[in-house]
Amino acid sequence: MAGNSFGKAFKITTFGESHGKGIGAVIDGCPSGIPLCEEDFAEDMARRRPGRTPLDTPRSETDGVEILSGVFEGLTTGTPIALFIRNQDVKSEPYEILRTLFRPGHADYAYYKKYGHFDFRGGGRSSARETAARVAAGVVAQKILAPLEIQITAYTLEMGGIRAEHIDFDAIHENPFYCPDMAVVGKMKEVLSRAREAGDSIGGIVEVRTTGCPAGLGEPVFDKLSADLAKGVMSVGAVKGVEIGAGFESAKRKGSQNNDPITPAGFKTNHAGGILGGISNGNDIILRAAVKPIPSIMIEQETIDREGSPARLKLEGRFDASAVPRAVPVLKAMVAIVVADHYLRFKSIS
Amino acid sequence: MAGNSFGKAFKITTFGESHGKGIGAVIDGCPSGIPLCEEDFAEDMARRRPGRTPLDTPRSETDGVEILSGVFEGLTTGTPIALFIRNQDVKSEPYEILRTLFRPGHADYAYYKKYGHFDFRGGGRSSARETAARVAAGVVAQKILAPLEIQITAYTLEMGGIRAEHIDFDAIHENPFYCPDMAVVGKMKEVLSRAREAGDSIGGIVEVRTTGCPAGLGEPVFDKLSADLAKGVMSVGAVKGVEIGAGFESAKRKGSQNNDPITPAGFKTNHAGGILGGISNGNDIILRAAVKPIPSIMIEQETIDREGSPARLKLEGRFDASAVPRAVPVLKAMVAIVVADHYLRFKSIS
Amino acid sequence: MAGNSFGKAFKITTFGESHGKGIGAVIDGCPSGIPLCEEDFAEDMARRRPGRTPLDTPRSETDGVEILSGVFEGLTTGTPIALFIRNQDVKSEPYEILRTLFRPGHADYAYYKKYGHFDFRGGGRSSARETAARVAAGVVAQKILAPLEIQITAYTLEMGGIRAEHIDFDAIHENPFYCPDMAVVGKMKEVLSRAREAGDSIGGIVEVRTTGCPAGLGEPVFDKLSADLAKGVMSVGAVKGVEIGAGFESAKRKGSQNNDPITPAGFKTNHAGGILGGISNGNDIILRAAVKPIPSIMIEQETIDREGSPARLKLEGRFDASAVPRAVPVLKAMVAIVVADHYLRFKSIS
Amino acid sequence: MAGNSFGKAFKITTFGESHGKGIGAVIDGCPSGIPLCEEDFAEDMARRRPGRTPLDTPRSETDGVEILSGVFEGLTTGTPIALFIRNQDVKSEPYEILRTLFRPGHADYAYYKKYGHFDFRGGGRSSARETAARVAAGVVAQKILAPLEIQITAYTLEMGGIRAEHIDFDAIHENPFYCPDMAVVGKMKEVLSRAREAGDSIGGIVEVRTTGCPAGLGEPVFDKLSADLAKGVMSVGAVKGVEIGAGFESAKRKGSQNNDPITPAGFKTNHAGGILGGISNGNDIILRAAVKPIPSIMIEQETIDREGSPARLKLEGRFDASAVPRAVPVLKAMVAIVVADHYLRFKSIS
Repeated sequence: MAGNSFGKAFKITTFGESHGKGIGAVIDGCPSGIPLCEEDFAEDMARRRPGRTPLDTPRSETDGVEILSGVFEGLTTGTPIALFIRNQDVKSEPYEILRTLFRPGHADYAYYKKYGHFDFRGGGRSSARETAARVAAGVVAQKILAPLEIQITAYTLEMGGIRAEHIDFDAIHENPFYCPDMAVVGKMKEVLSRAREAGDSIGGIVEVRTTGCPAGLGEPVFDKLSADLAKGVMSVGAVKGVEIGAGFESAKRKGSQNNDPITPAGFKTNHAGGILGGISNGNDIILRAAVKPIPSIMIEQETIDREGSPARLKLEGRFDASAVPRAVPVLKAMVAIVVADHYLRFKSIS
Repeated sequence: MAGNSFGKAFKITTFGESHGKGIGAVIDGCPSGIPLCEEDFAEDMARRRPGRTPLDTPRSETDGVEILSGVFEGLTTGTPIALFIRNQDVKSEPYEILRTLFRPGHADYAYYKKYGHFDFRGGGRSSARETAARVAAGVVAQKILAPLEIQITAYTLEMGGIRAEHIDFDAIHENPFYCPDMAVVGKMKEVLSRAREAGDSIGGIVEVRTTGCPAGLGEPVFDKLSADLAKGVMSVGAVKGVEIGAGFESAKRKGSQNNDPITPAGFKTNHAGGILGGISNGNDIILRAAVKPIPSIMIEQETIDREGSPARLKLEGRFDASAVPRAVPVLKAMVAIVVADHYLRFKSIS
Repeated sequence: MAGNSFGKAFKITTFGESHGKGIGAVIDGCPSGIPLCEEDFAEDMARRRPGRTPLDTPRSETDGVEILSGVFEGLTTGTPIALFIRNQDVKSEPYEILRTLFRPGHADYAYYKKYGHFDFRGGGRSSARETAARVAAGVVAQKILAPLEIQITAYTLEMGGIRAEHIDFDAIHENPFYCPDMAVVGKMKEVLSRAREAGDSIGGIVEVRTTGCPAGLGEPVFDKLSADLAKGVMSVGAVKGVEIGAGFESAKRKGSQNNDPITPAGFKTNHAGGILGGISNGNDIILRAAVKPIPSIMIEQETIDREGSPARLKLEGRFDASAVPRAVPVLKAMVAIVVADHYLRFKSIS
Repeated sequence: MAGNSFGKAFKITTFGESHGKGIGAVIDGCPSGIPLCEEDFAEDMARRRPGRTPLDTPRSETDGVEILSGVFEGLTTGTPIALFIRNQDVKSEPYEILRTLFRPGHADYAYYKKYGHFDFRGGGRSSARETAARVAAGVVAQKILAPLEIQITAYTLEMGGIRAEHIDFDAIHENPFYCPDMAVVGKMKEVLSRAREAGDSIGGIVEVRTTGCPAGLGEPVFDKLSADLAKGVMSVGAVKGVEIGAGFESAKRKGSQNNDPITPAGFKTNHAGGILGGISNGNDIILRAAVKPIPSIMIEQETIDREGSPARLKLEGRFDASAVPRAVPVLKAMVAIVVADHYLRFKSIS
C-alpha cells in the first residue's frame, strides 16, 4: 500500500530506481511566489553525489535537477513542483548476479519476499540513489525556511569511531567528510582509507542542527515535531538510530541534570534538543542519526539464492567505503522537509 | 493542524487530558469478527498504571476501559471501536501554581507558546496519562496479531544506568520494573530508591522484541516499518531516542561485522533488527527507546512565569521517580499498533 | 480499511451505532481559544432529532452532547475535542427479524457481504443515527466560521415533488420541514401525510448556501472545494446526488448562458455556485443534494435471508415518512465541516 | 496545502500545466507483477485527445506516455510508477492577454485570488490538459481491475440537450461523441455544429457503468464508495454535478418505488446504482456526471482585469465546442481509480 509520500502540508512523493530512467520528486503544498530555478539545486546535489573525493567510487552523474512543473516565470505557483534527475551512468551488466543472489545487509531479500518481482540492478528502488530526490525536495523546503531565518546545518559528528570534539560550522565544507572539527579530519581519512583497502566499510553519526526555528511547531500527540523528525530520518535507508537532544544519554541522567532551567533570557541548557512535549521551544533543534556501514563490501560473504540454496557472494565494481558524508546532505534535506511541513501546519492554526 | 491520529490501515485517534473527564481512543480499521471485551484490557492497563509498586506515587484510577462502540455480541464489527477511560482521581488544586509557572523539562512552555490557552492541570494533554489510550489501542492491535502468532514483548533493558545482562522473558513480570534479568533487579531498586529519596528521577532504556513477524511488512520509501516504528515510539512523550537492531552501535562497526550473513536456515545474526530496506525480513524485530528521567522532581528549579519573569519552582504531591517501567507497556502497545497497521497494509497488496 | 475520518486540517472521526452505547465524534485540528460549551449543541441537535413534528415517529432521545475532552475553562485548547451522545431509547427486540432478513434499500445486505458480522439493530453503524455525530461536529465548525462571518444556511428545496418557489431564509425555521417558502408548506405536509398513511416514504432535495466565504478556499486538483463538498455530502447515507451552482442544469446550457460575467462589483450571476476551478470565488456557495425516500416502509417487500432464501418483509415500529427535513441540519453540518477544513488549509499557505 | 493526491491504497499524485513542460502522474500502491508498457496507454490517451474529429480544434500532441519508473522487465514492481506526457504544442503568445484579464467561467479569477502568481497560459494547472494525467493513471487502475473482470464503460448520455435513448455498448466507439445510441448521433452532431458556428459551447451528461464489481467495496462512513466516486468525479474541472443510480430522480420517488427488491437471483432493479450504505452490492455501479459547457467561447464577454477595471474579452484560437466527449475517458479513468483503490483497501481486511 502506498508509502512513498511524506508530509501533510508540505508533502513530497518520490519515485525512481537506481538503474531506471531517473529519480524524481513531486512537491505538493509549496506556497506560491517563492523564487526557484534549476541552479538552486546544484550545491546540495553536488554534496550528495558520489565521486566527490579521491576515496569515492566515481559515478559520473552530474545530477542536474530538471523542474518539470510548478514554476512560472521564476516563481513557484503553489501547484505541484515535479523534479526529475535523469540517471546517466547505468550499466546494468554488473548486477546480473543479483538476479539470483541476495546481498547481505541490503534490501534484496526483503524486496523479494514482499514484491516477488523487483528491479535488482544496483538495489533498484532501495538504492541510496533514491535519496537524490530527497535532497532535491529539501532544497525547496529550505527555500521556504530561508526567508524566515530558519537554517539547517548538518555534519559528520563521528565516522569509523572518530568523533568531532568541536563543532565549527565553518569547517564543515572545508573537508570532504563534512566534519566540523578539522583536527580529526586526518584520522577520519586514515580510518576510511584502511577500511577501503580492506574492501570493508565504516559507519558513523550525522548531527543536524536547526537554528532560528520559532517555538510552536509540532502537532501532538502523534505528529510531534520529534516524531516526524524520527520518521523522516529513519526512513533513510542507512539510518538505524535517531536521537534528539541528549537522546540515549538522557537514559543515564537524573531529572535534575536533564531538565533545562528556564530563564528570562531563554533556556540555560538544551538537553531537550529544542523540543518539549513534541513542540519546538525556540531553542536549536538538535538531532543525531546513526548511519550504518555500507553493506556493499568487497569481501566474500555468505548468502543464499532465490531458491534458498547457499552461495558465496563477492561484490565488485563501484564501491564507497562509507555512506556517512553523503548522508549529511540527505539528512539535512529530511530535517528541512519536516520543519517546512510543520511550519506550514503551524501557520494554519495561528 | 490535526495530529492526533496514527496509522493508515489500523488507525488510532486519541483524545483526552490528565485532569479532564477521561482519556480515549477511536480505532478505525480493525477487521470484523475479532473477539473483544472490556476484560481484555485489564492486564496491560494495570501494567501501565502508576501506584503499582511501593515506590510509585499512588493514583487511584483502576483504569477500566469502556468500549463505546464497534463491538457487537462479543465480536468486532469492522466499524470504529471507541474506548474510554474515565479519570477518577483528578484533584486540580495542586496544579494552580502551573497557571503561571512553566515546569522545566515539561511541555508547559511549548504548549503555552503554541496554543496560548491550555489545560495546565497535570500537564493536560501532554501528560503521561495520555498513554493510557495508547495501551488500550495496543490491546486491540495485539488481538489482531495474536492469532497470527506475532508476539510483542517489552522490558526494561536499563534503568538509572543499571543494565540487564541477560534477557529472560519469564523474568519480566516477576519484578515491578519489567526487567528481564532478575540478577540486576535489586540494583535497579536501589538506584530508584536513592533517586526518590533525593526528590530526583532517573531514565532508562526499554527494548521491544517482535517475534513471529513474517517477511514483507513495511512500505518503502517513507512508510518503512522502521520509520513508522521510529515515529510511533518517538511520539511517546518521555522518549528521546530510538534505534533498531544494532542501532547506534552500528555507527562504530565495519560492514563485514554489521552485515547479517544469510543461510538456508535463516540469518546467522540479527544486527539489522529484523528490518532490511525498511521491510521486515522474518527475523525478530528489535527496537530500543531511550526514556528520559521524569522532569517532575521535588528539587527546586529555575523557571519563568507566563510574563517571562524569573521564578523558582518546587513541585510537590504526586511523584514517580522513573517513567521507565510504565513506559514498557506503552512502547509494547506502540509497536503492536505499527505492526498491526503494516500487517493490514501488506495484506492489501498480497 | 480505516474510513471514518474526514478532513485534513479540521479532521473529524466518528464512531457509534444506532443501538450501541452512543454516537460520537473526535474533532482534531480545531484552533485553541474558541468558546465552546455543551449548550452550544442544543439547537442543531434538536433540529436533527426525530419526533420533532406530529408526523414523525417519536424517538425520545434528548441528544445532549457531552464534551469529553479538548475544552478547558470554556475555551477550546487546540487538542482533540471528543463529543459523545448517549443512546437512550434503544429497544433492540423489534430488530431481531433483521438478524436473518435484509431490508431492501438499506445497507444490511452490503454490510453482511463486507463484514460478515454486523450490528443489525436499527441499521447499527449504517443508521441515520450516525449523523448525530456529524451535526455535533458541524456545530464546532460553525464556531470557527461565525467570527469570520461565514454563514451556512440549509433548507428543504423540494420534498415529494413539491418545490419551494421562493427562498426566504426567515421562513426556514417557521415550519417543521425547514422549507424556505411558506406558500408550499401546506402542500408538502399533504404529500407527506399521504405517504405516511400509505406506509410509504418520500424523498426530496436539500439546498445549502454558504455566504461570506472569501475567495481562495479549495486545493486543486483533487481537494477542490467542490470535490470535498461532493464527498462530504455524498457520504451522508440518504444522499444519491449532489450538484453545485447550476449543476445538472448546466448540462443543457450554452457556454454563453452558463458563464458568469465579471464586473468591478462582482459576478453578475452565480451559475458556478461560488466555485471556479475548484476554488471559492467569493460568491455564495450553492449546493444541492438529492435525498432518497427512506427505505424503511410499512409495505411488504420482497427480500432474502442470510442463506439466500426468498422472504417477505413488512417492517413495523418506528417510522419517518421522509428523511428530508432531518437531512437539513446534517447537510448544513457537512458543508460547515468542509468549509472550516478548507479555511484552515487555506490559512497555512497565505 | 497539498491537494494533488487522490486515493489511499492506490494513490495518484498529479502535476503539470497546460503550457509547461508536460503533465504527469505518480501512482503509488500499484501491486507488483502487473504487465505494463507504454503502448498500453495509447488507446485511452487517444480518446481524450482534442483534435479527434473534424469538429474539434486541432492540438497536435500525440500524448505518448513515458514510464519514468516502477516497471522492470515489463512488469510493475510495486514501487511508484511515474508517468510523463510531454507538452508539444505550447505556443503561449495567444495567452498574453490573460496576463491581465480573467476569463469568465474559468479558474483564472480564483487562482489569482488564491495564489497571486499563477501560470495563466491556457489555464495552466487548471486546464483540461491536466486530465491527461488522470487518463494515464486510469489505464494502470484498469490493468489491476481487468483480470478481476471488473470493467468500466463510459459514454455520452446527453449532449446539448440530446439524450441517448438506448444504451448499446457496441455503439460507443462507432461515433466521435462516444454516444451509445447511434440513432441520436446525427442530432448531437447538428447541435454541436450549430454551437460551434455561433462561437458557443454546449454541455452534457456522461454516464459510467462498472460491471463485475464484487460486493463489499467502500469504507463507511466517510470513505463510502459513493462518496469517493463523488469526490473523484467532481474533482474534474468541467463537472458540476454527480449522481449515483436513480440520483436526483430518487428525490421525486416513493420508497416503495425506489427500493430494489432482493431475490435469490439478485436485485430486481438497480435504483441504488450498485451501492447500498456506501458499499458495493454486486450490482452494476452506475454514475452520471453533469459536464458544463466549456467556458472558452468565441463570443465577446464582460470581465475585469487584475486591477478590477472593467474589460471586454473575446477569445480566439483553439476552440472545442464541447468538453463532453473528451470527458468520457477522463470520467472512466476516475471511476477506475476509485474502484481500484477500494478494491485494494477491501483486500486489506478480508
